[in-house]
Amino acid sequence: MDRRSFLRASTVGGATAAASTLAAPVYAQGKRTLTLVTTWSRGLAGVHDSAQYCADQITAATDGQLTIDLKAAGELVGAFEVFDAVSAGQADMYHGVDYYFLGQHPAISFFSQIPFGMNFMEYANWWYHDGGMDLGNELYSIFGLKPFPAGNTGPQSGGWFAKEMNSPEDFQGLKFRMPGQGGQVLGKLGASVQNLPGGEVYQALSSGAIDGTEWIGPWADEKAGFQEITKTYYTAGFHEPGPNLNLTMNLEVYDSLTPTQQKIVEQVTRASNLWTMSLFMANNSAALQRLQSSGVKVMEFPDAVWDAFGAAAREVVDEPMGDELYKTCYDSYMESLRSSATWIAKSEGAFSAQRNRVMGL
Amino acid sequence: MDRRSFLRASTVGGATAAASTLAAPVYAQGKRTLTLVTTWSRGLAGVHDSAQYCADQITAATDGQLTIDLKAAGELVGAFEVFDAVSAGQADMYHGVDYYFLGQHPAISFFSQIPFGMNFMEYANWWYHDGGMDLGNELYSIFGLKPFPAGNTGPQSGGWFAKEMNSPEDFQGLKFRMPGQGGQVLGKLGASVQNLPGGEVYQALSSGAIDGTEWIGPWADEKAGFQEITKTYYTAGFHEPGPNLNLTMNLEVYDSLTPTQQKIVEQVTRASNLWTMSLFMANNSAALQRLQSSGVKVMEFPDAVWDAFGAAAREVVDEPMGDELYKTCYDSYMESLRSSATWIAKSEGAFSAQRNRVMGL
Repeated sequence: MDRRSFLRASTVGGATAAASTLAAPVYAQGKRTLTLVTTWSRGLAGVHDSAQYCADQITAATDGQLTIDLKAAGELVGAFEVFDAVSAGQADMYHGVDYYFLGQHPAISFFSQIPFGMNFMEYANWWYHDGGMDLGNELYSIFGLKPFPAGNTGPQSGGWFAKEMNSPEDFQGLKFRMPGQGGQVLGKLGASVQNLPGGEVYQALSSGAIDGTEWIGPWADEKAGFQEITKTYYTAGFHEPGPNLNLTMNLEVYDSLTPTQQKIVEQVTRASNLWTMSLFMANNSAALQRLQSSGVKVMEFPDAVWDAFGAAAREVVDEPMGDELYKTCYDSYMESLRSSATWIAKSEGAFSAQRNRVMGL
Repeated sequence: MDRRSFLRASTVGGATAAASTLAAPVYAQGKRTLTLVTTWSRGLAGVHDSAQYCADQITAATDGQLTIDLKAAGELVGAFEVFDAVSAGQADMYHGVDYYFLGQHPAISFFSQIPFGMNFMEYANWWYHDGGMDLGNELYSIFGLKPFPAGNTGPQSGGWFAKEMNSPEDFQGLKFRMPGQGGQVLGKLGASVQNLPGGEVYQALSSGAIDGTEWIGPWADEKAGFQEITKTYYTAGFHEPGPNLNLTMNLEVYDSLTPTQQKIVEQVTRASNLWTMSLFMANNSAALQRLQSSGVKVMEFPDAVWDAFGAAAREVVDEPMGDELYKTCYDSYMESLRSSATWIAKSEGAFSAQRNRVMGL
């Protein structure tokens, strides 16, 4: 796995070196227009908004010295092509969720989402203060990239199904859309898993090409219209408790920015990270109520299904452990998660349980 | 209550108008040094760091066009004087927690913390997307101020006690440090409550002037050294599940900034909000383990004590309801909290319970 990754990296590195002449520091004195491509179709709820927020705020905070031109999925390159495009210098940066690119390097999963992994705050803790940033910079530099956490959807819903899922056996033969390691977990349970970008999911579900799908959460799912096709909806899911969305720059382009412009990119992406997460939270609760009112049945998986998810997730997360950088990221990630999860349970968890009990929330 | 607030506001408004000549737009073209005062003694773990982060990032992101000069509590004005000082134009902005200033207007509690109130993400949800920002701007403009959420400590611990607290009666006659409406709640249980700034708490506790105290959480509490005085420590508390720290600017100074500078202040404070919250999370778990290793007994209040906290908290939060702006803020805050708490319980709550069970975290 290492060898393939590094071979790929060296190819990409060559392309980046050639592209870097397009992004020389000479541009830093004047106004520059930088192209932002995304893994999102224009208008996808929340995720496209997050990319647009980054573009608008960088433009405003640099007084237009960096003017960010957003090209949604398909407008310049396809959703799944943004990683290669920015790595090769065809575009300056992308906004997306990086489990679409596990084929580039398995450790990318830690910087988007591993099943049963970190939520938003646990990831922020790891990235900003507990070793995640150094490891992420090391990993992405292999591909000539510089990542910045720039958004999070919050916990994603288990998804839309044609029938109730009462046992692990119900996943056998199920044609289901789920990307990343989460999809590999369902594969272990016998599902036939597909990795479709958001803009193509509705069509696949309504045509019967897939039996079910997860997408994001009540707000984005409602906008996507899945409730028009099926009424069985599972809220809590194992696969994406807090998927990180990166704004990832071509490293040579990043290096060509002035220190002040680099600082603004850093600060805007941090602001976007929190703004995006809270945007999803603000919309999900109301959307879930609307879905329920329209006849959607909101379910939770039984413990036996969670147990099967857990056993399969351990296998999936362990598989790439022969890769040294993957193992290093895993050790750092899990040590940080054990620590943050313990504290959260004792503080926010204990408080919220008492508050919701005492105040009847 | 309204009348007193508005009388105070009109006095302050006069002072601000006079001060505004010092902050005229003519400065906007050149480099300006702006003074940031704080409610924190220099070096107080996490909270001073948050103020310093804001100062450093605004300076860097504006390339020094705005150079922020941080004066900690006591260096220019005292911890409890920063609100008046910035309102009157003696300083340009402050970083602090605003329940110190409930005497100015009771509705300030919603923008720092009400007992049994919002956690960090619930507050971010309310402020950025669910009506909080407009109400906060309206309230603070009465005093010639412009607030920006710029940090959060995460859930604060119940505190340090000389003995175990097994029933509500144990609070009778207790001399305890707790600011804001939380302190008023303990007062209803018969405690003698004091509101001391952080820099003065250790001395009060070690001299016996108070029997116990809450401060922040394991990391900041350990640095403050309370474990040297008593060994009985309650983690989850009712009083501050997610206290918001504002960076609050003098409104005339804010209006004198260029749109680009205003945008940078907005983005930096949003970045600081997340950075600060995760800084506390990153340090609290390890600190709690160290405290336990050093012989500190970590406790949780029994349900009967939580119930008594709840009954008293309802009274305290209801008391200022005759003030129209307070009532408006309360209605908006509670509607938002009911919505976000419901969604969090169904998503992050349900997931975390399953994850921690299945993965043994």
